[in-house]
Parts: sequence; structure tokens; C-alpha cells
Amino acid sequence: MDKTINIAVLGGDARYLEMIKNLSKSSITEIQLVGFDQLNQGFTGVKQVNLDDLKLETLDAIILPIPGTNNEGVIETVFSNRKIQLTEGWFKQLSTNCLVFSGITNSYLSNCVNEAGLKLFPLMNRNDVAIYNSIPTVEGTIMIAIQNTDFTIHSAKVVVLGLGRVGLSTASKFSALGAKVSVGSKKKEDFARSKEMGLEAFHIDKLSSYSFDCDILINTVPALVVTDESIKPMKSHALIIDLASNPGGVDFAYAKKRGIKALHSLGLPGIVAPKTAGEILGIVIEQILNEEFQGRSI
Amino acid sequence: MDKTINIAVLGGDARYLEMIKNLSKSSITEIQLVGFDQLNQGFTGVKQVNLDDLKLETLDAIILPIPGTNNEGVIETVFSNRKIQLTEGWFKQLSTNCLVFSGITNSYLSNCVNEAGLKLFPLMNRNDVAIYNSIPTVEGTIMIAIQNTDFTIHSAKVVVLGLGRVGLSTASKFSALGAKVSVGSKKKEDFARSKEMGLEAFHIDKLSSYSFDCDILINTVPALVVTDESIKPMKSHALIIDLASNPGGVDFAYAKKRGIKALHSLGLPGIVAPKTAGEILGIVIEQILNEEFQGRSI
Repeated sequence: MDKTINIAVLGGDARYLEMIKNLSKSSITEIQLVGFDQLNQGFTGVKQVNLDDLKLETLDAIILPIPGTNNEGVIETVFSNRKIQLTEGWFKQLSTNCLVFSGITNSYLSNCVNEAGLKLFPLMNRNDVAIYNSIPTVEGTIMIAIQNTDFTIHSAKVVVLGLGRVGLSTASKFSALGAKVSVGSKKKEDFARSKEMGLEAFHIDKLSSYSFDCDILINTVPALVVTDESIKPMKSHALIIDLASNPGGVDFAYAKKRGIKALHSLGLPGIVAPKTAGEILGIVIEQILNEEFQGRSI
Repeated sequence: MDKTINIAVLGGDARYLEMIKNLSKSSITEIQLVGFDQLNQGFTGVKQVNLDDLKLETLDAIILPIPGTNNEGVIETVFSNRKIQLTEGWFKQLSTNCLVFSGITNSYLSNCVNEAGLKLFPLMNRNDVAIYNSIPTVEGTIMIAIQNTDFTIHSAKVVVLGLGRVGLSTASKFSALGAKVSVGSKKKEDFARSKEMGLEAFHIDKLSSYSFDCDILINTVPALVVTDESIKPMKSHALIIDLASNPGGVDFAYAKKRGIKALHSLGLPGIVAPKTAGEILGIVIEQILNEEFQGRSI
């Protein structure tokens, strides 16, 4: 059964262009764009419409920007000056089968979706998306490390804190470039994985014993782990890169006081590789649509 | 026998600071600097002098800037406004045992050194220096690739032309970052090495058959190999990075006409990792001094 899948993309940034391109390749998707009126480029078979033009009850999926909505339901529209606000009433006009995609969610969005009996997919919470995104995140981190040091990554002593989805990719690629990587973690499984990767591992509580002679310290743990105590013994040429979500895991005030350069680097995929970041979203949304609309292969 | 080795460093850029630091660590070197009068930092046991203060006949080695001299004997002094000119007569006042170091040479410098019966070491011509320098060169190339594309190196189709000292490191590191690397060369041994590295290899004459769908083309061959014919079929998003010495190996005019971004990226070690580049020079000069002054270990 080859029913068309009607998708509305509401707002978004440069990453969404590649995602739209990917999704529009399928012959059974019909895509309408809202909030792209200042976009110079067109997509074959994709229509630009106003919010009011959407026939909400016919939509199979809506794709909101990565940040979802703000607390008043306003969405980010990089390619439009028009304000787009989605009310609880608006969500209730959607069919209950309509899937709602966003990057992250907040209480406003979650509440609207719940009240309307809809299914929300906050893509950035998914393991697969986080792992795919770790690729451009690591390349951004490599770029930052090269730009902000006067030595090579090769032979540098690099400490990576956390061996989760981003930490694993970071440790792996810095090691591949010839850095001497040590991994700080609390988890026994991370010690095992580090060993398997040929990397030294240590308990994060002992960070000071590793930070004192490291050249680059990369944190991926979203909790205050890079404390004044671990920053204090660091060499003045050392660089700290914090990849953990806000508020990060580094005592930035102390690092500044101590004269150690510390950068909180967020949103790297959208900065260094918007095309790849968009492709990732396109691929994952396509997979979810396939699963949710089984039999209607897109 | 522990005779002091008297070294004069004449001019140079940021890389030389690390080299001077490295060389000054030895207890039996005595180092004098000419052309560093605007330098804010000092080195323990290293003296700043004027050119006329040098007792030329007592010097065991002089270290000229990377570019050597120009055609009138003038040397590059990044840390001084004073003009320093080295004449044929000046070189003749040196002891014939005095070693002369530079990065590269030209007919003026080679002639002065020959006429004075001295031994010249143009460091950049050495295989070991070129291989060490290939490390920061590749990291600079990675940085440029990340900065100038909207996709990741990971999964990108990368063509590397030439598998010499720089080409080998480039192919190896881009592959380690997850790029799909193909190597273009004319040499049978390069085909064998590519195969050993798990990379596809092709004869450089067939470049057009590989350039048409590549995302990043990196040239290391110092001859016009990236011709209009091989640029013509390239995708508009593709990036060309030319690492070959002047005049490079890319038809830049045609690339511009065709709308393909092509960058001639020279001197990357000094740009992205002056400290490492200086260390490399320090290590190699120390090795040569050790060999040339056997018994006088420094």
C-alpha cells in the first residue's frame, strides 16, 4: 500500500536543507516547508507554504527545529523573519497518528504533544543520532585542537573524560592521529573498553595525577569533573575543550584565573559539517518513518 | 673531550624559539643570537649579540633561517628590524670546520659556502626532516579540510596524489579518520604500499576517472598533475588542497573558472604547530652536531 506520507517541516537551520533533500528523494513523501521563505534554493517537488495553509489533519509527520519550541511555542526559523508560534490548540488539530520530530524537547512542547495524544521523537536523545553526530563533533574538536595549540596532536598527551557516545569517538580518533590518549571514567566497562583500544584508563577522581602533564584535556561528562583541584597543576600551554552540554563540566572561572585556555564547544556538527549533520537527521527520520508506517516503504 | 660547541643563530621565525630552547639544554653548547633584538622572551645561558660582535673564527656552527639567504645574502629576521646581510667575504672568515645550517639553499648561499670551503646542511632537503614535518603538515591539511567543507572527512571520498614523504602520512591519517582514500601515483612501489595500507591505488594518468566523484583532492606531486582535464568532471562541492612546493601541481586558474575551491597550502608546520616544527629542527640539528663532532656528545 503506497499511500503518500505528508510531511511538514516547520523552521530549522542549514542542517535541515540536507535533511529535506534526503527526505524528498523518496517518491512517496510529500513535503511542505514553513519558515523557509528567505531561502534562495529550491527543492524539486517540495512546496513552500504558510503555516495557515497546512491541512493539519492530513499530516503524517511534522518536523520541528532542533531546539523544538521555546516556552511560548515559538520555533526557530533561520530562513524566515516571520514569527511562527505553535499553540496547544494547534497541536490538537493534528491527526493522532501524526509523528512529531524535534531535536530536543522542553515542558511546553512535551505538554502540547501529550495533551494532543501525539508521539514525540526528540532525535538528539537517541543513541543512534548521538553516535552519528559524534563523528562531526570529533572532527570539530580536532579542528579546535589544531587551531588553539602550537604543537601537533601527534605525540601530544591527551586526556579524554568519559567514554560514552562522544568520548569513545574522541579517544579513538585522537589516538588514530598519534596522540597519547588516557581515558578518565568511573565505569568499569570504560576501563575495559580503554584497555581494548590500547589506551590507558584511570578513575576520574584521580584526574589531578593525569592533568598535570597533559597537553589537551577533553571533557564529555555533563557534571563538574574538571574542578579547580585538577586545573591547578596543569601546564600553562595546556588546552581544555569541554564538549558536555550546558553548563558543561569545567570550572571555567578557575581556568581563566589560572591562565589555562578552556573552550566550551557546543553544536559542532552544525558548525563544521552542516551537510553531514543534516544527512544524519534525514537518514534517522527516514528509518523512523519506515518503522512507524510499516508497509509504506519510503 | 668536552670542548664547547659555539653556535650562532642568525635570524629565523617562531619555529626557531623552540629549536633554540632545545639546543640550549645541552651543557656544552654555547649559543649566540643575532637578529632577535625584538624578542620579549629570554633563554637561560643564551646571549643576544650584534653581527659584528661574533668572533667568526671560533664558531662551530651557524644556523640561518629556513629560507637561507636571498640572492643578495640578506636573511629573514622576524624578531628584528635590522637588516642582516651575509657576504661572500663574511663566510670566508668562518673556520672551515664550521657547519652551516639552513632550511633550503639558493645559488647565492651555495656559492658563498662553496667558495669558503664550508659544509652546508639544507635541512628541508633531508628525508628525516621531511618525514617529521609531514606530521604537522597533515594536521594542517586536516584543519583546512574541516574548515573548508560542510561535510565530514569521515566517509568522504579523498584522493591523495603522490605517496612520498607527505603523501604517505596524508593518506594514512585521512584513512584513520574514516575517509575513503584512493592514491594516485606512477610508481609500482606506491601501488604496493597503498594495497598494504588497505587503500585503492590508480595510475595518476587516470585521475579523471577518480576526480569526478571525489570530495577532497590532495596533491603532493610537484608537477602539473591536476590538469583542466581532471578538474573538469569534479563536483562543485569538491575541495582541492595542493601541498606541493611552488608553483604547485594544480591548474588553479582553471579550478577558479570551473568554480572549484582550490587552495595552495604551504608552510603548514610553521603555521599550525611552530613549537613542534621547532622541536623537529632542534632534534635534527643536535643529531647532526653529534655526528659531525664525534666524541663531543652534546
